[in-house]
Amino acid sequence: MQADIITIGDEILIGQIVNTNAAWLGAELTQLGFSIRRMLTIPDLAEAIRDTLDDSIAHSDLLVITGGLGPTNDDKTKDTLKAYFNGKFVVHVPTLLHLEQFFATRNRELSERNRRQAEVPDTCEPLLNRHGTAPGMLFRKQEKWIASLPGVPFEMKGIYEEELLPRIKAAFRLPVIKQVTVLTVGLSEAETADRLSDWENSLENGVALAYLPSPGILRLRITISGENEIYINRLIKKKQQELEQLLGAAHVFGTNEDQLEAVLGQLLRERGATLATAESCTGGNLAHLITSVPGASAYYRGSIVAYANEIKQEILGVTPQSIHEKGAVSQEVVEQMAQGARARLGTQYAIATSGIAGPTGGTPEKPVGTVWIAVATPNTTVSRCFALGTHRERCISVASYYGLNLLRTIICENS
Amino acid sequence: MQADIITIGDEILIGQIVNTNAAWLGAELTQLGFSIRRMLTIPDLAEAIRDTLDDSIAHSDLLVITGGLGPTNDDKTKDTLKAYFNGKFVVHVPTLLHLEQFFATRNRELSERNRRQAEVPDTCEPLLNRHGTAPGMLFRKQEKWIASLPGVPFEMKGIYEEELLPRIKAAFRLPVIKQVTVLTVGLSEAETADRLSDWENSLENGVALAYLPSPGILRLRITISGENEIYINRLIKKKQQELEQLLGAAHVFGTNEDQLEAVLGQLLRERGATLATAESCTGGNLAHLITSVPGASAYYRGSIVAYANEIKQEILGVTPQSIHEKGAVSQEVVEQMAQGARARLGTQYAIATSGIAGPTGGTPEKPVGTVWIAVATPNTTVSRCFALGTHRERCISVASYYGLNLLRTIICENS
Repeated sequence: MQADIITIGDEILIGQIVNTNAAWLGAELTQLGFSIRRMLTIPDLAEAIRDTLDDSIAHSDLLVITGGLGPTNDDKTKDTLKAYFNGKFVVHVPTLLHLEQFFATRNRELSERNRRQAEVPDTCEPLLNRHGTAPGMLFRKQEKWIASLPGVPFEMKGIYEEELLPRIKAAFRLPVIKQVTVLTVGLSEAETADRLSDWENSLENGVALAYLPSPGILRLRITISGENEIYINRLIKKKQQELEQLLGAAHVFGTNEDQLEAVLGQLLRERGATLATAESCTGGNLAHLITSVPGASAYYRGSIVAYANEIKQEILGVTPQSIHEKGAVSQEVVEQMAQGARARLGTQYAIATSGIAGPTGGTPEKPVGTVWIAVATPNTTVSRCFALGTHRERCISVASYYGLNLLRTIICENS
Repeated sequence: MQADIITIGDEILIGQIVNTNAAWLGAELTQLGFSIRRMLTIPDLAEAIRDTLDDSIAHSDLLVITGGLGPTNDDKTKDTLKAYFNGKFVVHVPTLLHLEQFFATRNRELSERNRRQAEVPDTCEPLLNRHGTAPGMLFRKQEKWIASLPGVPFEMKGIYEEELLPRIKAAFRLPVIKQVTVLTVGLSEAETADRLSDWENSLENGVALAYLPSPGILRLRITISGENEIYINRLIKKKQQELEQLLGAAHVFGTNEDQLEAVLGQLLRERGATLATAESCTGGNLAHLITSVPGASAYYRGSIVAYANEIKQEILGVTPQSIHEKGAVSQEVVEQMAQGARARLGTQYAIATSGIAGPTGGTPEKPVGTVWIAVATPNTTVSRCFALGTHRERCISVASYYGLNLLRTIICENS
């Protein structure tokens, strides 16, 4: 089964907006078992839309079109589809009721222009938009499906999931495809590939592994396709376990949409434990990640961002002698920072970072990218040194995740 | 003049990668005066590439193709272009020399497979890739130009700017187009539109204004096109001044690629002044923004992220009475936080934030999104209250920028 993903909108063509809708739909339809023939972006012009429909309907089984459904005159999609499929406008009553409520709860008048958004061609099946004002439309031509969805990403995703996806699943005969993404931290792509190479080479037919790297975090997606759902469910569980075993609990922190900062937060919450941080090179990013999790105040007390050495001394209690003899980026100083944060902020655990994020400040012994990370616990202080490269933002991001993971592994090993 | 932007690569079609190359090229070519006819993504298949070339060459003046130039077997672009334009492979000597050096400096052997990357069809003009291994290629067919660039974004951008752009400018007769983007903070899109509406309605022909919003920052792009470069240069300067006057120095912080955190850093650096922060609701993000600027240690000393009330009291010296009577999110507490950070960290200036980022913790008097921001200076303490909405990440981001801007305006007003 082939699918085309069509985006209509000048704002995409002039580069004002990056087309994330196409990527999202590409992943969704691929996961359903469609092969994507093309992604195409065209302007808000009736002729361009008609030419595209001719070509796509001739070659693909499913067309998903996004954009061009707004109430203003520069949006041409609905009128063009009405003419192309020989329809006339009729009111879609569920959409009209939704619009009346939508505007009433916002204390706004339902204008004539907005009321007309409830009109759809009588040759389509309307798809109710619970998240905005423009309904989606589903046309069928012989065996081909043509779906038109709004361009606003959360509206598009909502209609797709609630209205279009169930219809596609019921009507198309698609292979069974299952995916699981294993989330890892602390191993590079090359190190991971080395550890997995024998296993990867022996993977059964229909089993695929994709590497999805981002700074500090490497996501590994297993995809299995075939005919027998029970067999595939069993096989994907087995493959996931094998993969997790090869990489180890020190590196695997979750699956799918998990976030390291939330996984760590949950561990602390379950134990009634509290956390503080002391940051030099990460400059507040560690605190920012931890506090991006709603409810973090239940376990997180705060951070001392000690960019200046005097603050490391005065607030965290690092000894001037250690800074003088070993340097601010050293095992001795980072351990004192972690212990100082733990004592000063009164928590069970503390994470500390000290490093050279660059672009300047490196020396032959301590090049840019050298980062010391320490975790202080009620019983001990553990520290590690990493070489994280010369890209400043990347170094800050990776060091933050490595700090979170060092504490995660210490908590897991001791419980 | 029309242009097509073609992306070749399965990883885009399956949604593994968002196509940022197309958006970047769309903005670049639009700015040059091209009208983008379509953006198209197709698989690594010779037949799909040939069909696309036929159609694009028939309709557009310029095709920019990215992707599919790697040395592995799944990349088909170079072989397909060679056959399409009836060429045979010849070695591009500058690329071969570059490859030898590229691999030598990385202590890697130049394999036969990689050596073949220096081969290009003799029917193209090679475009040297100083940033990677695969060269670009420029074919011409009658008056039409077909450029093939690698898919890795920084390689693509490098070849475009160094090799392709000068050739396009020299050969195509394009209208003169000038752009300037005015950067603002602290006004919503609707407030800005209200202030600008008379001015916008009276804009001359050929002058366009685009609103480019992001959390906390609103970028306003003025575009002017025409024939006479001297006139356009004068007009865009005038329009920029008018726009900046209408919005005011309290909101306009820079132009084009400026960043608020770097603009503030430069002000502090010029004055030899120092800065500290005290953060509750922004949870370290303010410190993270400030320290994302290379060399921030020259003026930034650190932050107290005081998530727990005890830390506001013990380290920042907020009185328990203020927290008890006014609450942690109050003018009294946020001003004490700023003063405490200034005194404790020994700086001229301090910024403090205290608010309810949500999703829970709101009350009828202080709903989610209520944020107090204070700046302490050697002479005074200034504070403001904002309602920043119920989206946690957005609230944290906007509050951070508003805090930076409050200090920026105070410094600018006093100098």
